[in-house]
Amino acid sequence: MLRQAAGGRLSRMEPREEILDIAAGLFVDRGFAATSTRDIAEAVGIRQASLYFHFANKEEILGELLQRSIRPTLDRIEKIESLAAEAGAGPDVLLHVLVVLDVRTLAAAPRNAGVLSRLPEVQRKDVFEPFGSARNELRDAYARLGTQITAGHAAAMTPDRDLLGTLLLQLVEVVIGMRSHGHRITPAVEAIVAASCLRVCLADQARIDEAADRASDLIGSLEA
Amino acid sequence: MLRQAAGGRLSRMEPREEILDIAAGLFVDRGFAATSTRDIAEAVGIRQASLYFHFANKEEILGELLQRSIRPTLDRIEKIESLAAEAGAGPDVLLHVLVVLDVRTLAAAPRNAGVLSRLPEVQRKDVFEPFGSARNELRDAYARLGTQITAGHAAAMTPDRDLLGTLLLQLVEVVIGMRSHGHRITPAVEAIVAASCLRVCLADQARIDEAADRASDLIGSLEA
Repeated sequence: MLRQAAGGRLSRMEPREEILDIAAGLFVDRGFAATSTRDIAEAVGIRQASLYFHFANKEEILGELLQRSIRPTLDRIEKIESLAAEAGAGPDVLLHVLVVLDVRTLAAAPRNAGVLSRLPEVQRKDVFEPFGSARNELRDAYARLGTQITAGHAAAMTPDRDLLGTLLLQLVEVVIGMRSHGHRITPAVEAIVAASCLRVCLADQARIDEAADRASDLIGSLEA
Repeated sequence: MLRQAAGGRLSRMEPREEILDIAAGLFVDRGFAATSTRDIAEAVGIRQASLYFHFANKEEILGELLQRSIRPTLDRIEKIESLAAEAGAGPDVLLHVLVVLDVRTLAAAPRNAGVLSRLPEVQRKDVFEPFGSARNELRDAYARLGTQITAGHAAAMTPDRDLLGTLLLQLVEVVIGMRSHGHRITPAVEAIVAASCLRVCLADQARIDEAADRASDLIGSLEA
């Protein structure tokens, strides 16, 4: 059903989705502290009481947005790992798949919600702790796969487990800044970020080429 | 001379430095929008009029803090390039030097001021444009050196100039997040971030080892 929203705009979104979408825009543009639930309700074109039917407060809205920038990736890790095990794929293929899917999650997050994870409020408030845990879980998956790839190398200047997870997550999050600057996240960008992650894990080019091939097959099966 | 600051604390800092230091803490902890020049003056233990003697407004304070997270690196690029030319050092050595110095700048920025560059206000307001330009200049230096290093490689999945600059700057800025989480930026971390940058530029391990050796000599001469 079409509903008339603020400014005469017609929206086909579900109310909950529309609240999230519009709140994300306000949080990014004005800041979280400067945005009230009243501002959000007005911008959506609903009464504040209707907003409270969906969300208890603005922290809950931000929490949900943050989760959406990370959960879709996390929820697929188990599936990726079991598919990879079936296919006999190694940690380099798995890392490639994980990076590509994570880049896509960030590229698809409404209004570049990944930016919101950098708000000072998010770093401090306990209410966003579930997001912090989810992010740690993701960094841990990167660290786990990364150390399996570096394991064969005796080189100096090899990152330890924690630093490797942090570096890989940091590389993937380049997408957040790129979206902020209006860049499109193309398949070429996905492939280069994934290859860069493998390079940071000391994989050589032959291994990266093979991982990329097998990764695209696996992503095909995941999405079938 | 020792001055009595808020809370009975004795400060040996110059007033201008102390305003910057305390403002950085407030901007990071409370957010930029929620901090007034009055709050800053009170926290420093001076009158608001005295603060205005040093800075016209809080934007100017934030602007100066942002510059300090990037200028010390930028100002040395020319010197690095001329020293490297004398020593006959290639782009891999130069990149290694630049990354280590940039990591140190970020590690030394008062109250982790690099975090402030992520405030939504900084992304939007024209008043912070000089910081944006300085950051572009730095990204450009990374892109220039990076493409000289990748030039010999015919591999697929090689980042183009812009993406390479963006990826390298992103890797270096891992230090900001690490400091936020209370990690120390050790010489080992500097070396690993620099090696990771060279890996993203497709440099092999022998080349990285040599670049690291020569880079530490060059950094020695720079700091002598």
